[in-house]
Amino acid sequence: MIKVALTGAGGRISSKIVKAVLEQEDMELAAAIGSLDTSLEGKDIGEIIGAGNIGVPVNGAQKLAEVLNEKKPDVLIDFTRADASVGTIKTSAECGVNVIVGTTGFSDEQMASIKKSIRENKVNAVISPNMAVGVNVFFKIIEDLAKILEDFDIEIMEAHHKHKVDAPSGTAVKAYEIIADALGGNKDEACVHGRHGMVGKRREGEIGMHAVRGGDIIGDHTVLFAGEGERIEVVHRAQSRQAFVSGVIKAVRYVVMTSKEISDMGDVLGIK
Amino acid sequence: MIKVALTGAGGRISSKIVKAVLEQEDMELAAAIGSLDTSLEGKDIGEIIGAGNIGVPVNGAQKLAEVLNEKKPDVLIDFTRADASVGTIKTSAECGVNVIVGTTGFSDEQMASIKKSIRENKVNAVISPNMAVGVNVFFKIIEDLAKILEDFDIEIMEAHHKHKVDAPSGTAVKAYEIIADALGGNKDEACVHGRHGMVGKRREGEIGMHAVRGGDIIGDHTVLFAGEGERIEVVHRAQSRQAFVSGVIKAVRYVVMTSKEISDMGDVLGIK
Amino acid sequence: MIKVALTGAGGRISSKIVKAVLEQEDMELAAAIGSLDTSLEGKDIGEIIGAGNIGVPVNGAQKLAEVLNEKKPDVLIDFTRADASVGTIKTSAECGVNVIVGTTGFSDEQMASIKKSIRENKVNAVISPNMAVGVNVFFKIIEDLAKILEDFDIEIMEAHHKHKVDAPSGTAVKAYEIIADALGGNKDEACVHGRHGMVGKRREGEIGMHAVRGGDIIGDHTVLFAGEGERIEVVHRAQSRQAFVSGVIKAVRYVVMTSKEISDMGDVLGIK
Amino acid sequence: MIKVALTGAGGRISSKIVKAVLEQEDMELAAAIGSLDTSLEGKDIGEIIGAGNIGVPVNGAQKLAEVLNEKKPDVLIDFTRADASVGTIKTSAECGVNVIVGTTGFSDEQMASIKKSIRENKVNAVISPNMAVGVNVFFKIIEDLAKILEDFDIEIMEAHHKHKVDAPSGTAVKAYEIIADALGGNKDEACVHGRHGMVGKRREGEIGMHAVRGGDIIGDHTVLFAGEGERIEVVHRAQSRQAFVSGVIKAVRYVVMTSKEISDMGDVLGIK
Repeated sequence: MIKVALTGAGGRISSKIVKAVLEQEDMELAAAIGSLDTSLEGKDIGEIIGAGNIGVPVNGAQKLAEVLNEKKPDVLIDFTRADASVGTIKTSAECGVNVIVGTTGFSDEQMASIKKSIRENKVNAVISPNMAVGVNVFFKIIEDLAKILEDFDIEIMEAHHKHKVDAPSGTAVKAYEIIADALGGNKDEACVHGRHGMVGKRREGEIGMHAVRGGDIIGDHTVLFAGEGERIEVVHRAQSRQAFVSGVIKAVRYVVMTSKEISDMGDVLGIK
Repeated sequence: MIKVALTGAGGRISSKIVKAVLEQEDMELAAAIGSLDTSLEGKDIGEIIGAGNIGVPVNGAQKLAEVLNEKKPDVLIDFTRADASVGTIKTSAECGVNVIVGTTGFSDEQMASIKKSIRENKVNAVISPNMAVGVNVFFKIIEDLAKILEDFDIEIMEAHHKHKVDAPSGTAVKAYEIIADALGGNKDEACVHGRHGMVGKRREGEIGMHAVRGGDIIGDHTVLFAGEGERIEVVHRAQSRQAFVSGVIKAVRYVVMTSKEISDMGDVLGIK
Repeated sequence: MIKVALTGAGGRISSKIVKAVLEQEDMELAAAIGSLDTSLEGKDIGEIIGAGNIGVPVNGAQKLAEVLNEKKPDVLIDFTRADASVGTIKTSAECGVNVIVGTTGFSDEQMASIKKSIRENKVNAVISPNMAVGVNVFFKIIEDLAKILEDFDIEIMEAHHKHKVDAPSGTAVKAYEIIADALGGNKDEACVHGRHGMVGKRREGEIGMHAVRGGDIIGDHTVLFAGEGERIEVVHRAQSRQAFVSGVIKAVRYVVMTSKEISDMGDVLGIK
Repeated sequence: MIKVALTGAGGRISSKIVKAVLEQEDMELAAAIGSLDTSLEGKDIGEIIGAGNIGVPVNGAQKLAEVLNEKKPDVLIDFTRADASVGTIKTSAECGVNVIVGTTGFSDEQMASIKKSIRENKVNAVISPNMAVGVNVFFKIIEDLAKILEDFDIEIMEAHHKHKVDAPSGTAVKAYEIIADALGGNKDEACVHGRHGMVGKRREGEIGMHAVRGGDIIGDHTVLFAGEGERIEVVHRAQSRQAFVSGVIKAVRYVVMTSKEISDMGDVLGIK
């Protein structure tokens, strides 16, 4: 049995992870850490998520080291905020507990500090800003295609809800970087936004980016590879905000078995 | 039997029309007019297109009136160039022959002159820059949807081959105009090209336009209507340059029956 | 102000409707009816859904007539179960309150009884098994296309989650019926499921049905109209179970203004 | 310069290949072989395809050995019929000329005989029933995805023109076999055609096959991988019958450089 602890107890993401851990036959929930001096202190995490009493009380973040030393989990799962997360990971590493880090927004300094903690304490970590299996596989596939389909023209389309304030999406930008690297051209110059007017023929190597906005679309990404007489379209559609959960579960199983200290989802999925 | 004449004999488009006319049980080919002093003069149009001798020799454009007066066709089909076409239509009208005009690129003056010829000579005309049935129906459908789905966000995507020099396509621009009219907003301000950076939330009533380029894609157009919890996508795909032919055949049947002098494909298809 | 009452208070669907009603400037929530002898009796419906106290206590279904007579709402919204709903609608009609009926699964007898209650009491009703605006517009559009695109081949594809036990979906079956009616052929013979082997050329007028199953897809429906050289695809995608809400809000505004006793969403949307 | 010969001179496919060879800076056309006692004997192949005189006369198939011995091409490209092709390849191999074989429909005995000729004469061959780059890459990608996305549900959809008599398409069947092999289950039992009625929940490991027919669709293939909260769709669309040409050109360059005797397009594209 893999003993799992998590932070952010009581939050929306954490609740989904708890549910998933409870469904795994090879895992048990060992500890649930909430925010500092959480009002949930002592309440059973199972009852909080509507799964009945499971004998795991929530503890405030100030007790993290104490709980980890007592419960000795194999893995700590952390989906919180960057500022809090750096300290959480350091404590976890010092307690000899592997970590799964889904928290995003780390500065370069924070990330360096995290990696130092992991390595110095000889624990393992999986760190990935997007744990969804499909998204990571999507990145891998478009990289492969960009390398193989050298004569094909490549365009990236994404669609998100009307409230999204940035464009293109972070996932589309990452897709662009992967493709531009695979093509080996000038990454800054390949990108084309919003063709209109007499733009002339498509330049070889250019990559069109198209950000569609409307309604409450969760997130679609399409990469088009267009050749002579044929084309390939690779489409990733997010249907719910549930997709990351199965990636987290895979990462838990991986992190306790690997001999690699710092991994990402590509390692977990074996696609590097 | 509907007796059909056509101009542009020997050209690629005209050959497709000849083939289609020969396949119709209610039509016969009465005359085939080529360019001025064409080198095909006197050759059988059936043999030229590989359909065997059908007893219809090609005549140069200088003999247009003579041939029309002799053969008395019910309809003349004209897919040529704007400059030549104005005179062709005038002659046809004066000879009492209805016309199907697929020629594009008329100036406002030329179009006014054409319509005057038609009306003065009391013949009928179908004039449409795109005779493909599907495209015209596509325009109708997106207009209906734009009127009904008043709370939905609308975006237009098109994809064409890498050699296309203008963007977005004429069809996409027409789709935009139809939708902007249906929405009743400021047609010049609704359009958004190439969102990138911190663009903020989508403005109500804006219409995103996205021109994808690559390979030898003939022409795809998609209009997205995105609402809360659901969306509708209407997609038109051109698979070959054959699509206009069945529209022409429908227009031929229509033009000899209608009492309307100047019609477009919307009239022919009964979708206005 | 339109005064709205609803049944099913405390349930998932009802909670979404309450939220939406509270957001409308021209509506106010007048009453919230729960199940018989509900344990929520007297609790504020606003607090139950996390919107704060709004001064509307839940009452058990046994008090329906009493509450309607006291609060005199303009409309009662009912998304419950067929068995309960018949009585609810009868009571509502007798109290002179218009009804929006999203409940499904009525027998023919039940439906006849409902309509009788509505007519005898001279109230109005909107009755529709699917109130989502997009789905109803989708039905309208494919009917129009089937009538106009008479030479095109039509196929229906749907995709749903892996737990769905019936195939094709009810929505796909309704799409089929609409198209088959529009084509005027034999509705029972046009349908083709699962082509495989040497099936021969496609018969004119046949309609292929394709039920895709996988993951947790909420529900996509596509109707393909394929002609010579071009095709049109109309796609409806459900992204969440939220889509019906805006249809309900439209129906509320409609039912208090119409002079038609029994309406469906086609009437509400003005697409009949 | 790579010296290229081809058979089938004067045919539609051969003409496309001639055009493409003439456009390559590193290739020259050395010989053009027609059918037995062809009526094109002695005519210039450049003139036949409308590219002007290129100094390469067509020779009848009876002169194959003589022409190969005289012109000493590096590669012979053969897109003809299985019966004729076996002898052509044998002769070519005996003359020390590598071959690109796009001909289809060989029996197992014929294929064994071809491979024997190649190996005995120590020449190289690329043999592939579909030389289109995109199709071969499509096969590779769906194989990779089927292996990685082990928890995802897989369905295959294809769409072809209304005249196609078999279903699903050969390409869809090959996609099925690749996926079934990757999944490791019982290849004969995984396939599901035409779900309808109360079919129950989707069985784990089943693969739905859906053959859409309509209009003149050249050929679309989609493989859906549907997981929890997300899905990936890989779509291949054939836009013209031109797609195989660039694959042939790649195969020509490959076959003169490789040390592998028998290769397929996977080898040519480096995706095995």
